[in-house]
Amino acid sequence: MIRKPILVFQTDFTYKEGAVCAMYGVVKSVDRDLEIMDGSHELPQYDIWSASYRLYQSMEFWPEGTVFVSVVDPGVGTDRRACVARTRGGYIVVTPDNGSLTHVEKHIGVAEVREIDESRNRLPSTRGVSVFHGRDLFGYCAAKLASGLISFEEVGSSYSVDEIVKFPILEPTATRGKVNGIFEINDPNFGNMWTNIPTEVFLSAGFSYGDRPQVLVYRKGALVLKERVLFERSFGFAQKGELIIYNNELMNIGVAKVQGSLASDAKLGFGADWTVEFLP
Amino acid sequence: MIRKPILVFQTDFTYKEGAVCAMYGVVKSVDRDLEIMDGSHELPQYDIWSASYRLYQSMEFWPEGTVFVSVVDPGVGTDRRACVARTRGGYIVVTPDNGSLTHVEKHIGVAEVREIDESRNRLPSTRGVSVFHGRDLFGYCAAKLASGLISFEEVGSSYSVDEIVKFPILEPTATRGKVNGIFEINDPNFGNMWTNIPTEVFLSAGFSYGDRPQVLVYRKGALVLKERVLFERSFGFAQKGELIIYNNELMNIGVAKVQGSLASDAKLGFGADWTVEFLP
Amino acid sequence: MIRKPILVFQTDFTYKEGAVCAMYGVVKSVDRDLEIMDGSHELPQYDIWSASYRLYQSMEFWPEGTVFVSVVDPGVGTDRRACVARTRGGYIVVTPDNGSLTHVEKHIGVAEVREIDESRNRLPSTRGVSVFHGRDLFGYCAAKLASGLISFEEVGSSYSVDEIVKFPILEPTATRGKVNGIFEINDPNFGNMWTNIPTEVFLSAGFSYGDRPQVLVYRKGALVLKERVLFERSFGFAQKGELIIYNNELMNIGVAKVQGSLASDAKLGFGADWTVEFLP
Repeated sequence: MIRKPILVFQTDFTYKEGAVCAMYGVVKSVDRDLEIMDGSHELPQYDIWSASYRLYQSMEFWPEGTVFVSVVDPGVGTDRRACVARTRGGYIVVTPDNGSLTHVEKHIGVAEVREIDESRNRLPSTRGVSVFHGRDLFGYCAAKLASGLISFEEVGSSYSVDEIVKFPILEPTATRGKVNGIFEINDPNFGNMWTNIPTEVFLSAGFSYGDRPQVLVYRKGALVLKERVLFERSFGFAQKGELIIYNNELMNIGVAKVQGSLASDAKLGFGADWTVEFLP
Repeated sequence: MIRKPILVFQTDFTYKEGAVCAMYGVVKSVDRDLEIMDGSHELPQYDIWSASYRLYQSMEFWPEGTVFVSVVDPGVGTDRRACVARTRGGYIVVTPDNGSLTHVEKHIGVAEVREIDESRNRLPSTRGVSVFHGRDLFGYCAAKLASGLISFEEVGSSYSVDEIVKFPILEPTATRGKVNGIFEINDPNFGNMWTNIPTEVFLSAGFSYGDRPQVLVYRKGALVLKERVLFERSFGFAQKGELIIYNNELMNIGVAKVQGSLASDAKLGFGADWTVEFLP
Repeated sequence: MIRKPILVFQTDFTYKEGAVCAMYGVVKSVDRDLEIMDGSHELPQYDIWSASYRLYQSMEFWPEGTVFVSVVDPGVGTDRRACVARTRGGYIVVTPDNGSLTHVEKHIGVAEVREIDESRNRLPSTRGVSVFHGRDLFGYCAAKLASGLISFEEVGSSYSVDEIVKFPILEPTATRGKVNGIFEINDPNFGNMWTNIPTEVFLSAGFSYGDRPQVLVYRKGALVLKERVLFERSFGFAQKGELIIYNNELMNIGVAKVQGSLASDAKLGFGADWTVEFLP
């Protein structure tokens, strides 16, 4: 017997009211056996980019076949597609097709995507409600799929992977002794900034652990930070309050303040506006 | 074999310290097989009204027989009753009888209620502690009940459903072209305000999707908001920052600021003091 | 067949990004059958003392054999030991050996401790990453241990329990009518302050429920609070806003403001600097 896949949820709902509770109740009412895990319910509100990044950040640590339900959905109830994607690695993502698949498509690959047929895969008792697709459409459809009540084909019609809504992703550039990229995301808990520069690229450009490269951070081209910073393996190599360049958990270059918040202290953000340059 | 029911917990404890962890440990020590789900541990502190509303908000999405443990309990350790209620739909609620059953009693119905017999259904190792009934009484008793170690009758003595402590609930009024109600609760995450007016009543009064009714909000009779607001199916029909009247997830009328927080921006609260009127 | 133990996690990661999700994915990839429970992911950042206290606070409410994974780890990636401890009661703790075992060692006792052998018990796919031992070392090793893939002996080499890193713990003193101690921890949610004084000691010194002892709080010897406060069984015995001395959930003396936050209002902290004295 094939085991039913785990359902991993991520949303911007928080646990402050009853939304997550109702959504999980729907899943358990479809199939009591389904195993539900919290990915996060504290994604930044309406921040599709973060939803996209967080899916990519954790996906490949889960068993093949795991079903991710991602609901950051400012366009809920409009004509943006609701979809189920199957990745190259055999994971499933149930999500509004609003950019949330950007990083998964780029880094892992989407093999097939289908638009959820609301006439068949929507919770019947809530017809008339258009504001809570997490509960009525994504959660419900994901539960049916994970429980085996419907096949992937029965989700709805297939459409071209090329039609998936994606944000542009900037690529880092590197030459000997000079690496440029962006802050692609932060760690909102510890205030660390994560670049889009693979550590491998950084090392190939000539930087070594123990070096103190110059870090230059620009916002829309205006310099906001210029400092020599230690490049080391982990935070414990620097003193509390010092900056450090490090290899982050996805093997990209990060910049952090040891036991402090670089993001808050230096008022740094992420996205295409936030470019970063490393010089010897 | 009858499957053991799921336990769904809601409290105002947060996960900031070890209380939830200890409470869940007690449940697992009673019966390792019991399945625990978080409803919420971020209810507003001491806010029995929210506890009552959140139970009602999610209950019927769960499988029949689900055991809800609700612990918002400013009177812990005093003579307020600790009880277990069985609803008309076959759900169980383990809670202080302090108003937490108000919405469930009104909207779903309580078939029977019993006072927990502390002499038999309290965690023996914590005798002397009076401040943590979530762990020592409600969690422990719920676990015994869900595991089948005690029957509903063995919880303790039955008392009249009429004796259940309830808050007064105000009813909305509607005539052709005029609907009055209160803000009954908010969505503290997105800052949306939920009225006690069923969308069906609103539509019957003559309002249609696409209309722009006048919304008047009063606090203790003093006008605090007067605005024409679009009535639509979902947030995506309005621009970011605009107000919208919509059919919320419980099929009541809500008012929201699209991708913003109406509650914070307009400093709105909920309860009997916060009346709202809709005019053509 | 012996049932696989539950894994209880506590960290300072929060759920704001993908770290917890990735860590749990690793566990489920090791063994789909493992049951994961959240202890807390909202411990104060870098606060090893809180990590130590929270382990002790909840441990003995869980079934024997439960595996606790505690990751508050400001020294991640340096030469602090990563260890697995087996307690006298048969619990397992997987943690950096950085002081996190202080309270468990004192109050419960550690029978044996082993240093995790990274060459065998580290997630192979993340070699090169030094900043996320929660995912790559502690979570992974705990999963292997709980699943039975490795024995306790196969964790790594044993070392002396005497070498475990511990904070000093101050002891309370009591004579007839006078009890001295410290605020050892707070309840960051409700703002209650917990002393290190067992209620038994307090009662033996002559205080009785219903009394109004004098409470004197000093910070580094300077008086910051002096007040007569009711000593009662629970919060409901005092009015909202009043202070109360009470027997807390670990049967130590606590001081609280009823339905308020004593910690915030009186700006109180905890630790060796915060001494408290009770007089008749």
